[in-house]
Amino acid sequence: MPINAQILDNPKSDRVRRIADLTRSKGRERSGRFLIEGPQSVREAVTWRPDVVQDLYVEVSQALDHPRIVSSTLAKIVEKSQDATIYVHQCTGEVIRRISPDAQGILAVGNARAMRVDVADFEIDGGKSGDSDDSADSGKTLNIAAFWQVRDPGNAGTVIRAADAAGCDAVVFVDDCVDVLNPKVIRSTAGSLFHLPVLTMGTDEFFTWAAAQHMDVWAADVYGTPDRKPESLPTVLAGLTEVDDTTDRTDAADHAIAVESPASQGSRAVLFGNEARGLETEILRKCDRIVSIPLYGKAESLNLGTSAAVMLMSLAMSRHIETM
Amino acid sequence: MPINAQILDNPKSDRVRRIADLTRSKGRERSGRFLIEGPQSVREAVTWRPDVVQDLYVEVSQALDHPRIVSSTLAKIVEKSQDATIYVHQCTGEVIRRISPDAQGILAVGNARAMRVDVADFEIDGGKSGDSDDSADSGKTLNIAAFWQVRDPGNAGTVIRAADAAGCDAVVFVDDCVDVLNPKVIRSTAGSLFHLPVLTMGTDEFFTWAAAQHMDVWAADVYGTPDRKPESLPTVLAGLTEVDDTTDRTDAADHAIAVESPASQGSRAVLFGNEARGLETEILRKCDRIVSIPLYGKAESLNLGTSAAVMLMSLAMSRHIETM
Repeated sequence: MPINAQILDNPKSDRVRRIADLTRSKGRERSGRFLIEGPQSVREAVTWRPDVVQDLYVEVSQALDHPRIVSSTLAKIVEKSQDATIYVHQCTGEVIRRISPDAQGILAVGNARAMRVDVADFEIDGGKSGDSDDSADSGKTLNIAAFWQVRDPGNAGTVIRAADAAGCDAVVFVDDCVDVLNPKVIRSTAGSLFHLPVLTMGTDEFFTWAAAQHMDVWAADVYGTPDRKPESLPTVLAGLTEVDDTTDRTDAADHAIAVESPASQGSRAVLFGNEARGLETEILRKCDRIVSIPLYGKAESLNLGTSAAVMLMSLAMSRHIETM
Repeated sequence: MPINAQILDNPKSDRVRRIADLTRSKGRERSGRFLIEGPQSVREAVTWRPDVVQDLYVEVSQALDHPRIVSSTLAKIVEKSQDATIYVHQCTGEVIRRISPDAQGILAVGNARAMRVDVADFEIDGGKSGDSDDSADSGKTLNIAAFWQVRDPGNAGTVIRAADAAGCDAVVFVDDCVDVLNPKVIRSTAGSLFHLPVLTMGTDEFFTWAAAQHMDVWAADVYGTPDRKPESLPTVLAGLTEVDDTTDRTDAADHAIAVESPASQGSRAVLFGNEARGLETEILRKCDRIVSIPLYGKAESLNLGTSAAVMLMSLAMSRHIETM
């Protein structure tokens, strides 16, 4: 339980300046560390990834004889951190606010390298279960949410949170995306960054990896390619959850739907495009399926975060319906 | 085509100050007018609700002999506005930016009263179609997205956009919600505010209206009441899209699911709670069903905008699957 007795009270000290510097990408690169702001993110980091957290900075009040953590919420997080080797530093409110206006009394500094996930280390058996194997709950398949050139920190955080909610095994940021350790990204994940691995890969590397894992890549895209129109999500969902009962159906239109038996839901990555430009045709051509979210009203589009949530949650719910 | 020849170039004029004042609720109350900012919102307002738009303010450059609208995007919106009686005022960039930093060269002033939707005027036949009537596409049913005490302008806009995408017939803001004509709300709707009616009602008024329209009220809620646990969304969806094939099923668990034939999907309002506190038990007790969105990973929650999108889009897709 290494709690530093000394209270950090000088907002102009070198130490405070160095920590505040982690809000900028240069500061993170230089030091190999990153900043985790606010009770929710710090609590999730301390709970799920204590190996990543190096130092914890918490606001104390000195109104009484001895320093006291300013709220029981923060005190609980500090207590939790003591299960691991995390150094706790008591700070004045001024110091905390100097480091980040979004701290709400608590901050942590993490080791950037510990957050890095190597593809080779990503040990999930991605082998597609055979068509005759209907043990869909055997956990042998991978569910990946992949994002190509996501640039906005808020979007990046929101999609990581959506992938977490949908129970994805990992998120992959493909090609030139925003830095996952940008504080705005971390805040927007609402703690989800510490719940599932986030990998970064180049475009070719991503498709090579997916192929090696026997993973279908589905593009989430509205337009498709000149040769291939997207399939509509509800049609795809109907195919996924449909029991093979075509003989009972009389409506000829039903037969146009690709009926996929539940057991054939193997490993899958759903790839989303850039918030402004979507996915390039070259990339769409490499994908096994192109799926679009229908718009029923007059709205022209959904934003990236909403699209990811609707698509990933719908697919997750269809998987869970079939195994009920 | 009333285009004012005079160019507004004084950012300190009374007129400019009065328009800028519409960003505040007091300014809107005093004048009965509201502000629409930016190309997307103004275009959608001019296209779908020209009756609401009174004046249009567009940025011109005076580099040449005569004033020119600064971009072809803006010129097209102005052209479109000339189908209706909308007064167009040419402004310098400085004037536009003084009114709103979010204008991107174009602004409109709307009539607040014209946006108001009276429940009595809301003329959709809400009669529930009989169980034997399977013409689900006859348009006789109402699909409503209702939000109780939504307070954050960004959330309010996002949920209106989600309801639009899901093809809802109207949005209802129940009890004490943020002002729908707040500029931040309008921006966040991405034009959807002009695509579907947004009503405001008290809580009792909402339930009375729903009953009069023979409308089921479903609560979107994670916790439920002490006596009633929420049903999980995928279970509900499975019930909605399920063809009556229970005789083919052998799994006993299936029989626990309330199987609802597609034709019984009558008028429905889905009610979402406040972003921080959800729905009160008293309100939950008044709802016909309580439905929760499952979380498959470690995420603790989805935010209001995401929850609304997932729930409303899932229900919309299930309606469209059954009518395919």
